[in-house]
Amino acid sequence: MHTPASKVSGYVVLMIVQIVFLVLFWLFVRYDKSALPARLDNEDAGSADEHVSKYPQFQDIQVMIFVGFGFLMTFLRKYGYSATGYTLFMAALVVQWSVLMKGFLHMEGGKISLSLESIIDADIAAAVPLISMGALLGRTTPIQLLCMSIVEVALFAANEYLALNILSICDCGGSITVHAFGAYFGLAVAMMLRPSSDQNEAGKHEGANYTSDIFAMIGTTFLWVYWPSFNSVLAAGTGGERAILNTFLSLAAATVTSFVVSALVSHENKLDMVHVQNSTLAGGVAVGTVCNLLLGAHGAVLIGIIAGTISVLGYRYLTPWLTNNLRLHDTCGVHNLHGMPALISAIASAIYASLVTVDSYQSELQDIFPAMVGNNGTTTKIMGGLGRNASSQAGYQLFGIALTLIIAIGGGILTGAALKYASFRNLQKDEQHQDEQYWEVPALESKEE
Amino acid sequence: MHTPASKVSGYVVLMIVQIVFLVLFWLFVRYDKSALPARLDNEDAGSADEHVSKYPQFQDIQVMIFVGFGFLMTFLRKYGYSATGYTLFMAALVVQWSVLMKGFLHMEGGKISLSLESIIDADIAAAVPLISMGALLGRTTPIQLLCMSIVEVALFAANEYLALNILSICDCGGSITVHAFGAYFGLAVAMMLRPSSDQNEAGKHEGANYTSDIFAMIGTTFLWVYWPSFNSVLAAGTGGERAILNTFLSLAAATVTSFVVSALVSHENKLDMVHVQNSTLAGGVAVGTVCNLLLGAHGAVLIGIIAGTISVLGYRYLTPWLTNNLRLHDTCGVHNLHGMPALISAIASAIYASLVTVDSYQSELQDIFPAMVGNNGTTTKIMGGLGRNASSQAGYQLFGIALTLIIAIGGGILTGAALKYASFRNLQKDEQHQDEQYWEVPALESKEE
Amino acid sequence: MHTPASKVSGYVVLMIVQIVFLVLFWLFVRYDKSALPARLDNEDAGSADEHVSKYPQFQDIQVMIFVGFGFLMTFLRKYGYSATGYTLFMAALVVQWSVLMKGFLHMEGGKISLSLESIIDADIAAAVPLISMGALLGRTTPIQLLCMSIVEVALFAANEYLALNILSICDCGGSITVHAFGAYFGLAVAMMLRPSSDQNEAGKHEGANYTSDIFAMIGTTFLWVYWPSFNSVLAAGTGGERAILNTFLSLAAATVTSFVVSALVSHENKLDMVHVQNSTLAGGVAVGTVCNLLLGAHGAVLIGIIAGTISVLGYRYLTPWLTNNLRLHDTCGVHNLHGMPALISAIASAIYASLVTVDSYQSELQDIFPAMVGNNGTTTKIMGGLGRNASSQAGYQLFGIALTLIIAIGGGILTGAALKYASFRNLQKDEQHQDEQYWEVPALESKEE
Repeated sequence: MHTPASKVSGYVVLMIVQIVFLVLFWLFVRYDKSALPARLDNEDAGSADEHVSKYPQFQDIQVMIFVGFGFLMTFLRKYGYSATGYTLFMAALVVQWSVLMKGFLHMEGGKISLSLESIIDADIAAAVPLISMGALLGRTTPIQLLCMSIVEVALFAANEYLALNILSICDCGGSITVHAFGAYFGLAVAMMLRPSSDQNEAGKHEGANYTSDIFAMIGTTFLWVYWPSFNSVLAAGTGGERAILNTFLSLAAATVTSFVVSALVSHENKLDMVHVQNSTLAGGVAVGTVCNLLLGAHGAVLIGIIAGTISVLGYRYLTPWLTNNLRLHDTCGVHNLHGMPALISAIASAIYASLVTVDSYQSELQDIFPAMVGNNGTTTKIMGGLGRNASSQAGYQLFGIALTLIIAIGGGILTGAALKYASFRNLQKDEQHQDEQYWEVPALESKEE
Repeated sequence: MHTPASKVSGYVVLMIVQIVFLVLFWLFVRYDKSALPARLDNEDAGSADEHVSKYPQFQDIQVMIFVGFGFLMTFLRKYGYSATGYTLFMAALVVQWSVLMKGFLHMEGGKISLSLESIIDADIAAAVPLISMGALLGRTTPIQLLCMSIVEVALFAANEYLALNILSICDCGGSITVHAFGAYFGLAVAMMLRPSSDQNEAGKHEGANYTSDIFAMIGTTFLWVYWPSFNSVLAAGTGGERAILNTFLSLAAATVTSFVVSALVSHENKLDMVHVQNSTLAGGVAVGTVCNLLLGAHGAVLIGIIAGTISVLGYRYLTPWLTNNLRLHDTCGVHNLHGMPALISAIASAIYASLVTVDSYQSELQDIFPAMVGNNGTTTKIMGGLGRNASSQAGYQLFGIALTLIIAIGGGILTGAALKYASFRNLQKDEQHQDEQYWEVPALESKEE
Repeated sequence: MHTPASKVSGYVVLMIVQIVFLVLFWLFVRYDKSALPARLDNEDAGSADEHVSKYPQFQDIQVMIFVGFGFLMTFLRKYGYSATGYTLFMAALVVQWSVLMKGFLHMEGGKISLSLESIIDADIAAAVPLISMGALLGRTTPIQLLCMSIVEVALFAANEYLALNILSICDCGGSITVHAFGAYFGLAVAMMLRPSSDQNEAGKHEGANYTSDIFAMIGTTFLWVYWPSFNSVLAAGTGGERAILNTFLSLAAATVTSFVVSALVSHENKLDMVHVQNSTLAGGVAVGTVCNLLLGAHGAVLIGIIAGTISVLGYRYLTPWLTNNLRLHDTCGVHNLHGMPALISAIASAIYASLVTVDSYQSELQDIFPAMVGNNGTTTKIMGGLGRNASSQAGYQLFGIALTLIIAIGGGILTGAALKYASFRNLQKDEQHQDEQYWEVPALESKEE
């Protein structure tokens, strides 16, 4: 099949990457002045306290990335080591890479400034390849996953810079730049790695058992409760409280809706754990881009209802169709949890942007839609210049999602091609969706005992 | 047995409820001004920051509701989907309903103000039917549970308003208004749904297995660690720190005591997971009402010792007696975790209230016992007028728990009667304590594999 | 085998301990003034708010202690009740004992002051015997564990006072005083309780199964995400932000390294869950003592790489050697997760201390290295007097770890001897690593069902 050397070489490459990171940290990264002692001759300390006021939200996001994503993917009955383990591995690699990548885009004086903000951004960046991993779950080697994540995060950082700084779109909770990017990149890779048509049936290990489904609920519930932190962490001013409120209400409405629609469309009207584990969260994605806007409670609830409905219907009808007709195997259904809800969020952002008035956003217009302000002190070159009107901003929102889709899908196709045809080992059909290829797994006897 | 239509109609009703919520949000709910942008002509921003200072506690409570309660109830070996799933479903429905219900009781200018405080209150309200669900676990349909929760939360909001605003009792951690209410309401419903005497034996699926007991410990441990947040979130001034300290110490003492008493009274002096999962938490309930008072460390520890002892003895002796003699099946033993400890808390509150002096509480008397202050600026009509003395306040504390019990039990009886005799489907004996009636469950083969 | 009375008497002793605690709380412990109402004649309130600003970190540490440690030890397939249950029991006992013990060392006017700080310290103290428990997991009775923890925490408090107040070493994240102490104390106890040479093979239940390994990942991931809180909670000034950043980066680097080295050294180059569960965390320990120093991102990453490497190699080669040659059974491998990484941290602290200049630490030198400042207002007698130079401070760092090792190992030997030869019951070989001796365990049939 394959020689040990092939596995070893992949891991060795990853170790070299880690050492390269070490060197780059040494050469380029310095503590932000908020993390440096105040000079004795200038005792205006206390800046740190303010700087770390987002620490609780950061910790919530940590739980989402390492616990939430990891356990959400444990639903496969023989792939729990991989789900939790690769999540840890990938996130630990990506957070370092993100500090560097995003740092290079915002260097000052040739140095990257390291602060709490850097690692908040790093955790958010880690979400991107973890979303993509959901589309590929069980069908790649760890080496493929890790290599993919390095390419993907670089593209993500570039696309995010384009969308937020050049196009100047609003995307407070990252549904466009994080969720849509991660989902469609992952789906494009999955498309490239799709099986030949005679191997298109589901893998024999591709399913849950009773215990693995409950493990997955650990992921679901932690993602649910901390989602308001993910969406609000980068919001400024009173937008932070709105982001919390809107996300909470959208999640609640999506959850109720997911349960109902699941029962209505499922076999014998029984609830389906796949919907409960995933579609309940679609409200968090769908409200993401617009979570700091003046949606009103009804706006947030409406978005949640739409997201829950579309997500369950996607799992029930669209995913099987894609599998059968396009051989696109989306193991976790990221298209239904991240992809389509992110599109809803992008569309919602265009609608709400088209309704923006100075009178409604008052002093926060500059924070939320900087390009709509005449002179906002930004030094970046914003496309089309400052002073946009509402419908122009709406157009840019749509441009932002379109560009994101193009870069994500294009990047995913190229990355998938590299993973397939370069010297990477690919999993055989019967090696998929189970840990044993890459993990020491206890013998069955010990389970029985 | 039953036609698909009967299930479908229940879910359809819940969807209609969700849509009614949407309409009510649209008509009545508006962002609080803390969540609205500061006007350009009046740049005194920053109010939001202060407003969201309780956000970390809110997030802790989120974990308690969605993860803590959900996993605590996974101890039944074949009911884990329902435990975690219905918790999510019920909480998502109730939080919306609570924003509306509690909002209607505190409207200003015909509108409900939405802020972080609203969703903190909503999470607390969600605890109420989740406690009741524990008394019924495995013996109702999801439709019955959800409908119950809607009625219960409305009664809860009314009773809480009565107790806190009209009777002006102290109940910082909600042991009277949340725990006693939820427990006795649930027990009353359970009483109405009790089996006929020839079906009074335990259900064949009503038990734990090794894995389900460990899942339940996820719930226990998260409830344990975050309970100080639940009890302190509504405390003002230095009472917040006391609430944290007292709750922590009471939990610790209850935990040590529960282990010891469990070993002393159990079969062969072995520890019983039921006690470990539940009675260890009784200290959090028993200290709830008085957690912000000047108990001293010894007061908190004493309350914990009493609560741990009574809770374990309740599980060991009282619950079997109630089951055998009254056919009252309290699946999770909420009477031992929430009911009796809440009564202890109410009695403790009367004792400590009778000892209150202006000299001890100084500037915080007004926050904690507003009716004991001569002129406190409250606009609500407090029963008996202002300027109560300590023994009068003690009397009101007892009146508060009595009224709560009457409303909870009365409401529970009526609700239980409706659930039994109205057009709700009731579970048959052999359908109880297992997911398969309402969930798609993986075939047994996949477990074995 | 043993009479019920022998078990009972142990539990009765623990209940007496709890009641002694109650009396000591009553006699000695009083709320800190931050937790007391402001006097009416002096309305400068608000001090409490400042005092509880570390509450979110406290809650993170709560999760680490009760959830993190508890679940990390659930990897044994038949010892999950004990792992989660004894963690809860031990931590609940120790936190009370720590408030008293550490209070006695810092009394003012004959009273112990109780504040949030006390219970932060208490949670940190609880980590110490939990680490030791890892070295003994499955080979002691609960009574032995609990009694050990009481002795150990008293010694820990004394050693910590010596190291921090008398020797005045830096140990921000507690790697010397907490991790090294707990690990080597536990290993010394394990050495005393080691089996006779004819019983040195692994216990028949000493292993993981698929489900128990995934439960353990709950512990790993929560410890991982909240470790920055553990290391930063006692840091002052901008050192708090550095502690967060350095811990985060060290963990990330240790994680990547652990995965790679695990694959390189394991059988068939497969990943080993033991390494993933434990060595990924070694970065948090190894950076602990120095986490608030000016390591730079590269310093933190380098420490992580070294820690991850040494930890995996320790599991792979050293632990089996110790077991086979010294009959030292370190069930969880605490030597690899806590012991050796703590030594790395101590050595790193000597190196970084030798490089300290006033120019680099400026206004924070006094907080971090109080003995290096000429006149720092400290009332404690610091060994060697104030005004140390950098190399002298480096020497004291090494003295600190040496003293800690002596006290931990000496204390552990004496404690282990007492546990072995005093009237404690010892587990027989076939009673080890399984819950059934001390827990009511569901019959096997209920698992099968």
